[in-house]
Amino acid sequence: MTDNRRFILSLSCPDGVGIVAAVSKLVADNRGWIIEAQHHADQEARRFFMRQEILAESLPFEIDEFRQRFATIAEQFQMDWAISDSAQPKRVVILVSKSGHCLYDLLSRWKSGELVVDIPAVISNHEDFRSLVEWHDIPYYHVPVPREQKDLAYEKIAHLFDTLQGDVMVLARYMQILSRQICDRYPGQIINIHHSFLPSFVGAKPYHQAYQRGVKLIGATCHYVTEALDAGPIIDQDVLRIDHTDATADLVRYGKDIEKTVLARGLRYHVEDRVLLHRNKTIVFR
Amino acid sequence: MTDNRRFILSLSCPDGVGIVAAVSKLVADNRGWIIEAQHHADQEARRFFMRQEILAESLPFEIDEFRQRFATIAEQFQMDWAISDSAQPKRVVILVSKSGHCLYDLLSRWKSGELVVDIPAVISNHEDFRSLVEWHDIPYYHVPVPREQKDLAYEKIAHLFDTLQGDVMVLARYMQILSRQICDRYPGQIINIHHSFLPSFVGAKPYHQAYQRGVKLIGATCHYVTEALDAGPIIDQDVLRIDHTDATADLVRYGKDIEKTVLARGLRYHVEDRVLLHRNKTIVFR
Amino acid sequence: MTDNRRFILSLSCPDGVGIVAAVSKLVADNRGWIIEAQHHADQEARRFFMRQEILAESLPFEIDEFRQRFATIAEQFQMDWAISDSAQPKRVVILVSKSGHCLYDLLSRWKSGELVVDIPAVISNHEDFRSLVEWHDIPYYHVPVPREQKDLAYEKIAHLFDTLQGDVMVLARYMQILSRQICDRYPGQIINIHHSFLPSFVGAKPYHQAYQRGVKLIGATCHYVTEALDAGPIIDQDVLRIDHTDATADLVRYGKDIEKTVLARGLRYHVEDRVLLHRNKTIVFR
Amino acid sequence: MTDNRRFILSLSCPDGVGIVAAVSKLVADNRGWIIEAQHHADQEARRFFMRQEILAESLPFEIDEFRQRFATIAEQFQMDWAISDSAQPKRVVILVSKSGHCLYDLLSRWKSGELVVDIPAVISNHEDFRSLVEWHDIPYYHVPVPREQKDLAYEKIAHLFDTLQGDVMVLARYMQILSRQICDRYPGQIINIHHSFLPSFVGAKPYHQAYQRGVKLIGATCHYVTEALDAGPIIDQDVLRIDHTDATADLVRYGKDIEKTVLARGLRYHVEDRVLLHRNKTIVFR
Repeated sequence: MTDNRRFILSLSCPDGVGIVAAVSKLVADNRGWIIEAQHHADQEARRFFMRQEILAESLPFEIDEFRQRFATIAEQFQMDWAISDSAQPKRVVILVSKSGHCLYDLLSRWKSGELVVDIPAVISNHEDFRSLVEWHDIPYYHVPVPREQKDLAYEKIAHLFDTLQGDVMVLARYMQILSRQICDRYPGQIINIHHSFLPSFVGAKPYHQAYQRGVKLIGATCHYVTEALDAGPIIDQDVLRIDHTDATADLVRYGKDIEKTVLARGLRYHVEDRVLLHRNKTIVFR
Repeated sequence: MTDNRRFILSLSCPDGVGIVAAVSKLVADNRGWIIEAQHHADQEARRFFMRQEILAESLPFEIDEFRQRFATIAEQFQMDWAISDSAQPKRVVILVSKSGHCLYDLLSRWKSGELVVDIPAVISNHEDFRSLVEWHDIPYYHVPVPREQKDLAYEKIAHLFDTLQGDVMVLARYMQILSRQICDRYPGQIINIHHSFLPSFVGAKPYHQAYQRGVKLIGATCHYVTEALDAGPIIDQDVLRIDHTDATADLVRYGKDIEKTVLARGLRYHVEDRVLLHRNKTIVFR
Repeated sequence: MTDNRRFILSLSCPDGVGIVAAVSKLVADNRGWIIEAQHHADQEARRFFMRQEILAESLPFEIDEFRQRFATIAEQFQMDWAISDSAQPKRVVILVSKSGHCLYDLLSRWKSGELVVDIPAVISNHEDFRSLVEWHDIPYYHVPVPREQKDLAYEKIAHLFDTLQGDVMVLARYMQILSRQICDRYPGQIINIHHSFLPSFVGAKPYHQAYQRGVKLIGATCHYVTEALDAGPIIDQDVLRIDHTDATADLVRYGKDIEKTVLARGLRYHVEDRVLLHRNKTIVFR
Repeated sequence: MTDNRRFILSLSCPDGVGIVAAVSKLVADNRGWIIEAQHHADQEARRFFMRQEILAESLPFEIDEFRQRFATIAEQFQMDWAISDSAQPKRVVILVSKSGHCLYDLLSRWKSGELVVDIPAVISNHEDFRSLVEWHDIPYYHVPVPREQKDLAYEKIAHLFDTLQGDVMVLARYMQILSRQICDRYPGQIINIHHSFLPSFVGAKPYHQAYQRGVKLIGATCHYVTEALDAGPIIDQDVLRIDHTDATADLVRYGKDIEKTVLARGLRYHVEDRVLLHRNKTIVFR
């Protein structure tokens, strides 16, 4: 739909007087129609965050000139900023292992047009989902991750990601711990779904840990991957009530429902440029 | 705390280009420090809504001059608007009947300083809570509502409310249906907690209705009172899971937990000027 | 897995003394190993409900003899009862229209072995999902439902259902109102997902109704279909928080997440014989 | 209400065949009317748990004889067991510090008859709530806990608890870490509300920890106190959604709502003998 094409401006900068005034003056002077706007001032960090969606056709110029004009304001206020184009869907590379519920869910949302992204490839260390993925006309790459050659495998994945011009890598229950190199190479670009309510139950077998501890709610957490295991900035979380009748296998089974929902939600926030990062935390303009 | 005294600006107007720019220019030109800001454009109604909290001491003038200066912008954009002062707590008159859980909860929040309001009076058609209320040094008015003289009773309540210079009337499980006259007299000023997930189970005995229908979640709804029973603009709602083991008496008992939480939340939104009205709906800037 | 094959006994009867004793004596005398057991006495209806899972191999006889022996007790206490075999998965016929999210979700659960059922067919009034369904090696039947020949179409569906020996018919956002005849023919066998928190917003376009009313939570309800529209016994419900920024299209989009989860949960309860009916309500032994 | 006085039988024992049969035979042979019954077999621990509520007047004997008769079965199956009398409310001693929201909430529930317990005393290391508590006609004991004489203080508290014949000690945001001695002395009798979703954020200032980690949900946990800090068996938990706009002070404020609800719920389960302990986990028969 060209007619509701939007430019999405997102920025953060040291907090101060006049930021909103300067940005909105630029947009208003050019008769820009703001569809959605949010800002947030972090009192403690003294930092300001902003996101605006502007109707592309309401502006008298294209995205390049918008960027050029905005650069002056950005410099003045020392902004980290980006302007993206809703007509250019993000390119999402999905990594999957042997659990298919998140993959199925993402494909379903993509197929129905609910999740507006391009999926240039699914990469897996197993062959299990080749047929399903290829039925969706999406290329499937089998990249085994042998225990003694993990770095080589991750190098292959990084190469694929670059070649496919991926914007974001989604670990859809990938079950492999990425190397420090790959984490550092794509900061804020790798999204993981961890099957616990972080920071509880970091690492392997969180449902087993949850069962042992006897918690009454289980959770799932969508977060950016950093080199510190399951410790990256959290995008979204959710929980589900359980009770004493539920064995570990039940937790694994029920947990899937929140894993896929939370991952899809977190990914949507990301590809719609709703997530701004500050140190190890996220500002999510829903 | 004078040092974080804030002016709270809230407005709505026909949507258009330049509103944010105009408002933020006024604030920025006077070096006003915006603590919190939210806006919303209703695409369908083509109406724009905005709320800002500005640090009082950051501005070079007092609230009256702020209002005066703002009036020009307000006229230009045909705004419905108000500027309030966080140092002037809203005056909340509580009406209660024989169920005390919401009253207790509001008093607890008020006493601990969590709910920043003045409570000039509690009014009831019964004597049950006189002692509790008076222990809190709050005047208690017993206004019976005899079946054949309801209008007279409501007239007394309205008179009390006016005399006490009430800003908002809270029906904390008051159990009486207010007259059309009183509803019309205080639009957007009377808040009720209805013990169902509206629009399900309007009117009397909603938990009994819920039990009969066999729902699996019960709810509570905080809304503005209008002359149409339980049909006013909804401020907040919440639900609670139940199951077949719960009899009507259990629903009544468990429901209290969401009633008091939802009422307290809705009231807080209201007294912090976070709720804007548009027709029969609310914009809640949390 | 034969070794955890279970017989599932479910029953209801007028409440009285000695029911549990009689049933558990039969099981215990035959050294039956009870895996799971739940009962419930409805005080108001004075009716008793029970469900037991017994390890098949722990009993010295097969299901037919179990039924035979149980019949004596059943008669004594005037029970409505059934004994089913976990090794005989229920046969689920899915009906779908043009919204595929529930279908995708059910197929994903079935494919991964999470949902243990047979799916002898998917029936649709459109061709949209033929390829997806057939990729799963499930037959797809296109049964158009022309406005003026609905009864004929439903007759075809009923015939298909019977021929395929279906146990349960799932309306996975089927969007057609079944005829009274078909509802009466399969009482307690047709499961629907309605995209609202019933009894709010019965009938067409519930998200539009929800948007108009300005509710702060939207919901989904899984229920048995009866001739009264959206008024059958509720199996499960859930809700999702929304706010003023969400347009109707957002409600439609977000709502899908609870629709598919609630339908899958309700269907699982049903196929595991966890749902007992009493008048217009359900007892769900989770 | 004598006419619905109930005997509450709760037990656990090694799992095996015939337990339910034996127990229900005893009850049925004496024409006992079972109001509510639940059991659970922990497959992993091979242990069986059971709870029954039996109408007192339906049995031909009093509680002492019931206990006597039950002892035979109990011995046969090596049961840990208890039979309690609903007409004998549990004696709950509340410990509080300077945060009053949980205290207020418990007093409100007790006063309205929703929480059926006796409260022989409130104990505090401060004088803040003396007047409120005494207004409720409940004795208030001020037991200071000086840093260098904590053990002496806890000794006083234990002495008071014994003298008052307390059944359960409730730490209603008591903010003091009990000594190992007192924890060991009252196993399964001390209930705490911790203001985080355990096992996340053990120890001091959990909301500050939550803020630092950037979680998207905060929680509260009601658990039995053991010598290991915040590591005892969990009775109930709940969470609340937050976002980037919430400062630590907001988390503290919002968190109170779940703290008081979860504590009240956990306490109710306990005083109704709904909680059975097994190692470090609870079985909660709701």
